[in-house]
Amino acid sequence: MKKIGVLTSGGDSPGMNAAIRAVVRSGIYHGLKVVGIKRGYEGLIHGDIEDMKISSVADIIHRGGTMLRTARSEDFKTEEGFKKAINVINVFGIDGIIVIGGDGSFRGAQSLSQAGIPTIGIPGTIDNDLAYTDYTIGFDTAINTVLHAISNIRDTSTSHERANIIEVMGRHCGDIALFSGLAGGAESIMIPEDLVSVDEVCKKLIQGKNRGKLHSIILLAEGAAENSYDIKKEIEEKAGIEVRLTILGHIQRGGSPTAFDRILASRMGGYAVDILLQGKGSRVVGMKANEICDMDISEALSMKKEIHKGMYELAQILSR
Amino acid sequence: MKKIGVLTSGGDSPGMNAAIRAVVRSGIYHGLKVVGIKRGYEGLIHGDIEDMKISSVADIIHRGGTMLRTARSEDFKTEEGFKKAINVINVFGIDGIIVIGGDGSFRGAQSLSQAGIPTIGIPGTIDNDLAYTDYTIGFDTAINTVLHAISNIRDTSTSHERANIIEVMGRHCGDIALFSGLAGGAESIMIPEDLVSVDEVCKKLIQGKNRGKLHSIILLAEGAAENSYDIKKEIEEKAGIEVRLTILGHIQRGGSPTAFDRILASRMGGYAVDILLQGKGSRVVGMKANEICDMDISEALSMKKEIHKGMYELAQILSR
Amino acid sequence: MKKIGVLTSGGDSPGMNAAIRAVVRSGIYHGLKVVGIKRGYEGLIHGDIEDMKISSVADIIHRGGTMLRTARSEDFKTEEGFKKAINVINVFGIDGIIVIGGDGSFRGAQSLSQAGIPTIGIPGTIDNDLAYTDYTIGFDTAINTVLHAISNIRDTSTSHERANIIEVMGRHCGDIALFSGLAGGAESIMIPEDLVSVDEVCKKLIQGKNRGKLHSIILLAEGAAENSYDIKKEIEEKAGIEVRLTILGHIQRGGSPTAFDRILASRMGGYAVDILLQGKGSRVVGMKANEICDMDISEALSMKKEIHKGMYELAQILSR
Amino acid sequence: MKKIGVLTSGGDSPGMNAAIRAVVRSGIYHGLKVVGIKRGYEGLIHGDIEDMKISSVADIIHRGGTMLRTARSEDFKTEEGFKKAINVINVFGIDGIIVIGGDGSFRGAQSLSQAGIPTIGIPGTIDNDLAYTDYTIGFDTAINTVLHAISNIRDTSTSHERANIIEVMGRHCGDIALFSGLAGGAESIMIPEDLVSVDEVCKKLIQGKNRGKLHSIILLAEGAAENSYDIKKEIEEKAGIEVRLTILGHIQRGGSPTAFDRILASRMGGYAVDILLQGKGSRVVGMKANEICDMDISEALSMKKEIHKGMYELAQILSR
Repeated sequence: MKKIGVLTSGGDSPGMNAAIRAVVRSGIYHGLKVVGIKRGYEGLIHGDIEDMKISSVADIIHRGGTMLRTARSEDFKTEEGFKKAINVINVFGIDGIIVIGGDGSFRGAQSLSQAGIPTIGIPGTIDNDLAYTDYTIGFDTAINTVLHAISNIRDTSTSHERANIIEVMGRHCGDIALFSGLAGGAESIMIPEDLVSVDEVCKKLIQGKNRGKLHSIILLAEGAAENSYDIKKEIEEKAGIEVRLTILGHIQRGGSPTAFDRILASRMGGYAVDILLQGKGSRVVGMKANEICDMDISEALSMKKEIHKGMYELAQILSR
Repeated sequence: MKKIGVLTSGGDSPGMNAAIRAVVRSGIYHGLKVVGIKRGYEGLIHGDIEDMKISSVADIIHRGGTMLRTARSEDFKTEEGFKKAINVINVFGIDGIIVIGGDGSFRGAQSLSQAGIPTIGIPGTIDNDLAYTDYTIGFDTAINTVLHAISNIRDTSTSHERANIIEVMGRHCGDIALFSGLAGGAESIMIPEDLVSVDEVCKKLIQGKNRGKLHSIILLAEGAAENSYDIKKEIEEKAGIEVRLTILGHIQRGGSPTAFDRILASRMGGYAVDILLQGKGSRVVGMKANEICDMDISEALSMKKEIHKGMYELAQILSR
Repeated sequence: MKKIGVLTSGGDSPGMNAAIRAVVRSGIYHGLKVVGIKRGYEGLIHGDIEDMKISSVADIIHRGGTMLRTARSEDFKTEEGFKKAINVINVFGIDGIIVIGGDGSFRGAQSLSQAGIPTIGIPGTIDNDLAYTDYTIGFDTAINTVLHAISNIRDTSTSHERANIIEVMGRHCGDIALFSGLAGGAESIMIPEDLVSVDEVCKKLIQGKNRGKLHSIILLAEGAAENSYDIKKEIEEKAGIEVRLTILGHIQRGGSPTAFDRILASRMGGYAVDILLQGKGSRVVGMKANEICDMDISEALSMKKEIHKGMYELAQILSR
Repeated sequence: MKKIGVLTSGGDSPGMNAAIRAVVRSGIYHGLKVVGIKRGYEGLIHGDIEDMKISSVADIIHRGGTMLRTARSEDFKTEEGFKKAINVINVFGIDGIIVIGGDGSFRGAQSLSQAGIPTIGIPGTIDNDLAYTDYTIGFDTAINTVLHAISNIRDTSTSHERANIIEVMGRHCGDIALFSGLAGGAESIMIPEDLVSVDEVCKKLIQGKNRGKLHSIILLAEGAAENSYDIKKEIEEKAGIEVRLTILGHIQRGGSPTAFDRILASRMGGYAVDILLQGKGSRVVGMKANEICDMDISEALSMKKEIHKGMYELAQILSR
């Protein structure tokens, strides 16, 4: 192993830069050449690749987004596009690739592995929707961003004695809603994994109001409702309370990464280089039981993420 | 003058608590009794009033929202409701009232003045839409909140090489969009006062793209478009660029007030008490030419707010 | 078990309020009466105790500090003081106590346990200096506060092309320095557990300068130097570089807790109530391998905290 | 006028980058060539100068520090150094210079003007110590940074029922202490312009304690005391209260600039280019009465900054 490449793919997440920095500096420390592949698999297809030096990743550890840019590549999924990519890898003499991204990006990594290119995945997504790892890079930053929004909305909500729905990201996985809801003291948390009925939410709103609660926050994962505006209307009608809806959207993806995400990213980046050097390929790096670890990529992708039941119940107990 | 009341009315804004604190402590310092009227003019109608001590306003200077709660009162606009309010004022022996709020709240203050109750208005609204004052309480905090959102969206926007529309508050006044757009380096700013065509925005987007710009931020005041989703769609079609829309909504109203807003609120609160003691009524407090000042309430309400042309042009020059 | 008490003791840490809230609401949910004991063991001696209701802990989850106040009690360590405390516990009919604090506070909890009072410790300290748990409440917030300071100092340091020493808390444990140093990309990290020589630090500074590095950050745990000013002077002389020293001090103890700390505190608070109800006493709650767990208090206190070697080495590899 | 240069000098301040950006883009918009001079007057002496394009100042508006670096130049004050600088200006064909910095930097600008080089000063310093302008660039960011520190210290201070001294910057000018003290609700503010006796501070501490105040914050400008540690000790002895001292130091200089500072910097940068083009030289740009204006540099330097008496008295009234 003499030369490795690193790319970011799919939706960006805070901490991706810290992971890139760790891959580059760890790689160089171990005597490797490291190249950066731009805009994910697109850059692999088009040879949009540049040499990385120690100074290439200076002053990026604290920046959100990804310096290598990112994209979702449809071409890479075609036979022709994939062949081009393999060709570029050979022409550039790349002996191993580290892919930072979510499950879609990992499927690309799996394909590369199956074609004989040692490839390691690092989980970079704010959604925390990968079952094989306790945390993904960017999740901690995202829930702190949501918490900040909850705090702002709580101020105005209390002043007006209103209820608020905050829609957060999470199509299949309710972790952002659950973690930020528990941390933010949200009255109700609506997640895709355990669909609570609107009636249930309304019951709690009415009880709270009767007990003199001045405000209520409902955390709604985007995957828990067909349409947030309908939910808002239904609650207003059933609970007889004025409700405001805020859709947080893309502010959840940005921001300077938290300490947790920077450390996670740095450790995972260093670890990915280590196992490539040990001759491993077709693996994903994770954090399990507070230790950095690795797992077969196909096995990881076949695991089913489940919501943390204990935390979900605790949130309900504590938010009365 | 022996006893004064203070209330917050209309939409809340960060710094209202600092203003309440200043009114209470200044009043007591000058030998007055101060009462807090809850939920705006509603509390005046229903006698929802409590004595304020120095300690009542401890540890609130840094909190968003308003400890006195706020509301929009339809009752107060009726003859019956207004009579009840006057009655409560007499029964409680209130000699003067300080109203913290926006133009709607000032109309209520005007009515009270006309009924012989010395009333002073303090401008508390994030919109900065009052022509007689350079700044309203809460505006500085709001534009910094928008700036934070711009910063987050810029991270992810750069990574994906996309354009973003950020819709901010401002139905008739584009100040939030203009100030945060200038400060955030937004490529285009769409305000109600000077409707730029979508074609103009697209032209800039296309030029930017051709020059290699990796991202574009379009600040859109809510009053500058019938429907933000339509604008997004139109831009996508005309410019051929993927566009994301984020509606910031109520997070703009909350948050711990900035130094600027706390100082403005403290000074205005103290000043309002001073002029009440000087026998003035029917006035609004403002900041003009960097000095706290006051003006007749009717005159103030008749003034027409205009956008700062110099800043608007500067924003266009600097954002290329 | 019918009535339990909760107290915070020793240095405060962000998240203590979230833990109090969890104890109170979990306790009430399980049918217990919960009392709050003020100013740590001092309040226990003097019967400074009040009933806690669900609403007593409303709107505190996001606040730094501790609503129950805290203190270090010398009296409690005397036979007489301890007897008074036991007497108060009996008079108030308290069946179990939850102590939130660091190792000093846990020794008090141990004494109460040995006197037959079921007592559970929850680790609340920013230092992360307890060996039996991976994380203490407040640590995550503290390292993010340090990170913020590093970011500010890096700005000015880069502009001036200077080196900076940042002294952080940690008398015996270098975790704050290590974690924030790794996350902040600090060039050198000086911790009590592995005393790096000043010569080593200077060597790195000189090498960095020769490679064109514009700034250098040295994270210094307070326990790693007799006197920070001497270290500063020594480095200036040996490396021939202008060095600035910033002692962060008590700003590390405050601030609104991060999502991580609020969740950790909420889970630990709920768990502590659960095990009290199961009849356990003389235990401390911890987080090990990403799960909340408990351990005998004496065993926990006998364990020796060690620095995370892997992270320490990684920090050196990545900060070149 | 065909080519202008811009430099930053003295201590850096947040918003300098926004000012550089405005100078560069405004200049180019008006058809000028713009060059950046590195490390203040040092770069002028050594010809460390580079061409600036529109893209040179992309993505810097939100960054603290200065991309042009800064320094204090002793050489420039010598006849030889000054001659070299004039020579470089001629060789590079620079027709006008914009200097961003504080009063020391303005003296350099004055010398250049006197040598016939049209030079404009922009006030970039966190100290707000220039009498001719209401605000300097960086001041608003600095007081918000101090406010954040006050907030953190208040949390822990309240928990421990202690008094805290926070030493902030300001050798001759107490504005940082006054503005952040008023905004932060500090109990006492010690500034160089109006030396309050330690006895006075102690009196207030004792009165507060007797009224049940849980914490006290004393804002101390560095110029108001020979030695902060002595003040701390004196207060502890005289008031019989435990006092903690935090010296904020250089974290006050960094951080992403606030909206206010970015707008101020953008407007001043644009204005400086405008007046250079109008043929003016030997002027400084300021903000007076909420308008951007300019004044003769020698006149500006001869003015004596005074503390805002009204705000100082208000702070005392409100902080009881």
